[in-house]
Amino acid sequence: MRAITLPQHGGPEVLTLAEVPDPVPGPDEILVRVAHSAVNRADTLQRMGGYPDPVRRDVEIPGLEFAGTVEAVGHRVTVWSVGDRVMGIEAGACYAELVVTHERQALPVPDGLDLRDAAAVPEVFLTAWDALVVQGGLTSGRWALVHAGASGVGTAAIQIAKAIGARIAVTCSAGKMQACSTLGADIVLERSPNDWAAELTGLVPDGVDVVLDVIGGDEVDRNLKVVRREGTIVQVGLMGGGRTPVNLGLLLTKRVHWIGTTLRARPLEQKIDVCQRFIAEVLPLFDAGALHPVIDSRFPLERTADAHRHMEADANIGKILLDVATT
Amino acid sequence: MRAITLPQHGGPEVLTLAEVPDPVPGPDEILVRVAHSAVNRADTLQRMGGYPDPVRRDVEIPGLEFAGTVEAVGHRVTVWSVGDRVMGIEAGACYAELVVTHERQALPVPDGLDLRDAAAVPEVFLTAWDALVVQGGLTSGRWALVHAGASGVGTAAIQIAKAIGARIAVTCSAGKMQACSTLGADIVLERSPNDWAAELTGLVPDGVDVVLDVIGGDEVDRNLKVVRREGTIVQVGLMGGGRTPVNLGLLLTKRVHWIGTTLRARPLEQKIDVCQRFIAEVLPLFDAGALHPVIDSRFPLERTADAHRHMEADANIGKILLDVATT
Repeated sequence: MRAITLPQHGGPEVLTLAEVPDPVPGPDEILVRVAHSAVNRADTLQRMGGYPDPVRRDVEIPGLEFAGTVEAVGHRVTVWSVGDRVMGIEAGACYAELVVTHERQALPVPDGLDLRDAAAVPEVFLTAWDALVVQGGLTSGRWALVHAGASGVGTAAIQIAKAIGARIAVTCSAGKMQACSTLGADIVLERSPNDWAAELTGLVPDGVDVVLDVIGGDEVDRNLKVVRREGTIVQVGLMGGGRTPVNLGLLLTKRVHWIGTTLRARPLEQKIDVCQRFIAEVLPLFDAGALHPVIDSRFPLERTADAHRHMEADANIGKILLDVATT
Repeated sequence: MRAITLPQHGGPEVLTLAEVPDPVPGPDEILVRVAHSAVNRADTLQRMGGYPDPVRRDVEIPGLEFAGTVEAVGHRVTVWSVGDRVMGIEAGACYAELVVTHERQALPVPDGLDLRDAAAVPEVFLTAWDALVVQGGLTSGRWALVHAGASGVGTAAIQIAKAIGARIAVTCSAGKMQACSTLGADIVLERSPNDWAAELTGLVPDGVDVVLDVIGGDEVDRNLKVVRREGTIVQVGLMGGGRTPVNLGLLLTKRVHWIGTTLRARPLEQKIDVCQRFIAEVLPLFDAGALHPVIDSRFPLERTADAHRHMEADANIGKILLDVATT
């Protein structure tokens, strides 16, 4: 099969289209013919050597999500048949024409969703929902704060919050504020160095219930300032830096829960658990019209390097897709 | 009544014995004739002006715990009768001959426990149990790490961990290591700047499940190093400093839960909830002989300043009690 490989780590130019051996499904796994994959911020980190694939593979292939059709099934598989439309997350190897995944980790593509758009769903909707709802405990009536509101995770978070009756504030750069409002964000704040924390405290004086933060760095102390007593901060990324001075006095006196999380490193049983809940609790909201993928742009697989450059330029609103199937 | 008051904030000399009006119980409250109170690290902080009482009072009286007998009951009280032996926690005002508390927040003194020793129980056993078990999820078989193993909270933590079938490592200064071993700690480590983290990793390679930390400061990064994937750090104090550089990369990749907590600032319903669970789950362990108060020393109420000096000298093993009743 064709796949984008990483013969070395570095800039976008190291992403190399190559012929590699087809993956072989185990007894509980399905083989998926990938129609589309998508770029995630974590892929650029992996490309630079800073986010190694937890799965040992002969050839390093990045890519955390896919949408396609079932090509073959392992002999114990009961959930899927050849030809079914599926999407899902994997720890890597999704920039490829064929992907193997556990049958209970795969997600059905909702009927109303074009396969062309489905690869924009798994990673960001799973991440946003897991962080806000499963780990953060967001419910109707409560307030979420999400940084990078126009990112893939941000655009998913806004829709999920509104779909469950919660309220949401987001931060983003000035040029993306309108897009966040249009998606339904209740409060849209221009990101730091603008003093968004003071602005938010004026609007939500008791503080927000859940913070979903992909930034870290300078935003950490602002998160602690704006979170309510006994609120939860879910740290999903550290784009703004890892080693950071933190005002632990606020963590203590506000009795904050600060949770670090990644989907990728979890063991299989946890991934299956979150995927099965997602099927039951979130996918119906696509059929109901409450959720939809937000797609910024599409690149053919052979132009994956340009897709990475586009993400690193920080200009996207929503997902950057890769068209894998050539026909 | 007589009470220790804080006419101003500062060193131990500001602790002033005075005559103040008796407190009056509300309809759901009991009035307790205090036999003994006890000194907590937080009291020294309050004395210096750094830990204000969340309850507004005409006269500032420190003191977070008491043991005594019921002197009078509010007209809706059903749990207690005059003369019952009670102990408990309050947000302040326990360095006094009379204390008022909600009837459902008061704890019965276990039959086998001398009233003389009971004031050594509430604050440290509640804190250690709430942090390790309720918030940290410590169970049989799992590993706890507790700093300041010979402190009041530390000596309670060691006993609780062993009583529920868990395993526990503690840090303390060289002179207190024997006391921690005698209490039952499985691993006793000399505290920083000794590299206890490397030592602990050698002994518990998969990492500890729960960290109870009263220090903060330089221990924060070591906590993140030794906690296992998906482990919990419960931050109960910050004796080593509040604003601290933190390796957030470990928080993220290990999917750590970092929880700030204090008992004192919680609303009434939460205090009652934790006290009622404590009555059901922990007090029976005193009758069973698995738990006992660890008492370092006793001071009469009029020598409270000396009791504070003793705590600030960091030489105590277990609790420093105040004898309040003069007879």
